[in-house]
Amino acid sequence: MAVPQSTHEGLDSRQSAGLAVLKERFHNRYSDAAAVREQHGHTTTWHANQAPDAVIFAQGEGDVVETVRICADHGLPIIAFGTGTSLEGQVNAPRGGVSIDMAAMNAVVRVSPEDLDCTVQPGVTRKQLNTHLRDTGLFFPIDPGADASLGGMAATRASGTNAVRYGTMKDNVLAVRAVLANGEVMTTAQRARKTSAGYDLTRLMIGSEGTLGIITELTLKLHGIPETIAGGVCPFTSISGACNAVIATIQCGIPVARIELLDTAQVRACNAYSKLGLDEVPTLFVEFHGTEAGVGEQAALFGEIAESHGGGPFKWETEAEKRTALWQARHDAYWAALQLRPGAKGVATDVCVPVSRLADCIAETISDIEDCGFLAPIVGHVGDGNFHVLPLIDMNDAQEVARAEAFLSRLAERAVAMEGTCTGEHGVGQGKVKYLKRELGEASVAAMIAIKRALDPGNIMNPGKIFAIGE
Amino acid sequence: MAVPQSTHEGLDSRQSAGLAVLKERFHNRYSDAAAVREQHGHTTTWHANQAPDAVIFAQGEGDVVETVRICADHGLPIIAFGTGTSLEGQVNAPRGGVSIDMAAMNAVVRVSPEDLDCTVQPGVTRKQLNTHLRDTGLFFPIDPGADASLGGMAATRASGTNAVRYGTMKDNVLAVRAVLANGEVMTTAQRARKTSAGYDLTRLMIGSEGTLGIITELTLKLHGIPETIAGGVCPFTSISGACNAVIATIQCGIPVARIELLDTAQVRACNAYSKLGLDEVPTLFVEFHGTEAGVGEQAALFGEIAESHGGGPFKWETEAEKRTALWQARHDAYWAALQLRPGAKGVATDVCVPVSRLADCIAETISDIEDCGFLAPIVGHVGDGNFHVLPLIDMNDAQEVARAEAFLSRLAERAVAMEGTCTGEHGVGQGKVKYLKRELGEASVAAMIAIKRALDPGNIMNPGKIFAIGE
Repeated sequence: MAVPQSTHEGLDSRQSAGLAVLKERFHNRYSDAAAVREQHGHTTTWHANQAPDAVIFAQGEGDVVETVRICADHGLPIIAFGTGTSLEGQVNAPRGGVSIDMAAMNAVVRVSPEDLDCTVQPGVTRKQLNTHLRDTGLFFPIDPGADASLGGMAATRASGTNAVRYGTMKDNVLAVRAVLANGEVMTTAQRARKTSAGYDLTRLMIGSEGTLGIITELTLKLHGIPETIAGGVCPFTSISGACNAVIATIQCGIPVARIELLDTAQVRACNAYSKLGLDEVPTLFVEFHGTEAGVGEQAALFGEIAESHGGGPFKWETEAEKRTALWQARHDAYWAALQLRPGAKGVATDVCVPVSRLADCIAETISDIEDCGFLAPIVGHVGDGNFHVLPLIDMNDAQEVARAEAFLSRLAERAVAMEGTCTGEHGVGQGKVKYLKRELGEASVAAMIAIKRALDPGNIMNPGKIFAIGE
Repeated sequence: MAVPQSTHEGLDSRQSAGLAVLKERFHNRYSDAAAVREQHGHTTTWHANQAPDAVIFAQGEGDVVETVRICADHGLPIIAFGTGTSLEGQVNAPRGGVSIDMAAMNAVVRVSPEDLDCTVQPGVTRKQLNTHLRDTGLFFPIDPGADASLGGMAATRASGTNAVRYGTMKDNVLAVRAVLANGEVMTTAQRARKTSAGYDLTRLMIGSEGTLGIITELTLKLHGIPETIAGGVCPFTSISGACNAVIATIQCGIPVARIELLDTAQVRACNAYSKLGLDEVPTLFVEFHGTEAGVGEQAALFGEIAESHGGGPFKWETEAEKRTALWQARHDAYWAALQLRPGAKGVATDVCVPVSRLADCIAETISDIEDCGFLAPIVGHVGDGNFHVLPLIDMNDAQEVARAEAFLSRLAERAVAMEGTCTGEHGVGQGKVKYLKRELGEASVAAMIAIKRALDPGNIMNPGKIFAIGE
């Protein structure tokens, strides 16, 4: 595939000297063992592993500052590593350099139930935070499939199943602290719920994929656990019926908390992997949050909409255990799909379109999948117009790989042509670099690069991601 | 007051040549008449008028591109002008140059009810848009007091009474088109509800106060008009009781659509100006959006909270006409307050703190007002922790002006010390420049300036605002 291959051909003497300085400084928290390096170039998906030259295990912000300063002095790339669950090659080291592992910076610094916010270190994972919050009546809603680190989720502007109701990381981070390429520590905001004090550096850092700085602390919004949660499953006779039910639900203003589409292939995969016992037809997983009466109103209205689009029966319940099993299966959809073709790689991708174009975009994509002869389950956060396709590809078959590559390009172009985006939540990383200008135009990408050069003139911060500069 | 006075001491010959080029190009859409220039340096509040050297009346994006290119070639500052209702000197021309009036770019380009979004030119005002939408069942919620232009509202990251439920401009703009200092037109995003495609240039432009580019088009989120709207008024025996009722309301997770505090002085002013007939005590104006049952639940719960904090009776109703009168009075609060001391200027300011600190911040501020001997009504979007103080000052009394200046500094420092911000919604403009480093630190302000220099190396885009560079 046209993944940017490593341009890394060994370090120059200045860079090698930088590694020696780092080794001297961090001793047993510095590793250049092959297995450790390889693990830190790990990508969950089909991108080839491009390992860094060394890994530093950070224990605090001071370690990050020191590492950045040493890297800057020696022209060494530096790449932040959380849990390694990004999907577009964000943690790869195509130009070598240092991976800085943030996993040990995993303290929940402060929780303020009275302000519905908290401050965490970047290595805290979303599940760890919600476990920490369990006695407060509060939760943090953003849930990508993996139990990712919150620093990584901010860096990639992650979202997940709850985004249709609670927004994405963009909407749920009040402030970050970050170490910039010059070694200075920046605080993007204090804790007020809103501010007009200068440029929105918080949002600039969210989604910058480690190319502008390394996040060392995040202040997050929290939400009250709803009085009542109702979840359910609704089968459809056709995928277009399911899409149109989603469109109608959003247009009616039902404040649905989650609305997820699984196509027939994905339902089959989840049945096998998670023992769901569902009818193997296009299916929506739905959840409502509110008061008991409110949730009942929402569910009834959704059931009527579904029925008028060939859906139903819509079965829902408020019992926690069964709902949890359902959503765990949804989060395991990627692993379930991989089992459909053992030995194949999942070429994970995501696009997002205005919701009115969702049915068209999915229909054209299914037709394309059929033409390609791929096994490629579709699953998605369809309330936002966001969906994933996972072609299962034999990476040893060059022709199949080339066909998959061409399919991904057509999918991205299709979404962009429908006024959507080539990535709703996975980020650009290495895999989507080539689509960015097509989507946003030369002037926008030039503005991004100007900002990148202004804040990181040495191009040490995760080089080769989002846009290819300095090659 | 320590408002940055004009450093403008006449144009140099290159700049004068630029004006001649503009005059030649735009003919009767170029004006250097004193009255027109003065109107475009107009500030609603206490900042001194600093008029531009000329005004261009733009009719389309092409005019903006041409004007920016001519200004860039001749080192002329360029300042976008919408309705002139900003409050911190944002439209002033401290270094002279050109004001570009966007009022005639007031077309609603597209409304897509099926996607709950629309595209508008920047001169469209918030009321104009809502009038345009009146048959769609949709509305645009952001409502600063003035009927401001949407371009200006985006540029200053405006909010208003609905922000506690619907967010600010940051949350309700999907994309902007903007002319950059190099004359290129940038589109920050397409229309998908969420995207991870590169840096969040949309949010970077929102709140940049015209210092990075001039917005020529905005794509906005719209919201369904709620099935039922209930609004009401709740008097309190003390301002601390009212604040604590707000804190409890937010902490309980009541999805209040509006919750506004008026102190006794402000209620008195509104009674006189808007004939409200309210008890002259600290008062909350509250509104709930939802289904009929949902709104009833919310109102009942709020009533109980208010009563336990010395509030009530809470009278509410769903009839549109009476609600409208109430909120018009709230939006006229500024003009009402000015009548309390005819001839005085209103030294408008705003701060925002975490909601748990709201009662403390307001109590300390009231004590400060009493020590100063000012007439200074307080009004605010207290659900967000955001409030305004309006000292009514005789600008001819230098001692009083100096006392007001010291009061503003203490207020900003107090909010910042409580982990809040020196401005929740008015922006930095000229008036808050001196607080920004105190709030965010040197590294953040340096990062903002680096971005500014990268995108506007000639410093032609609204120079002298947000931070003082190039002086």
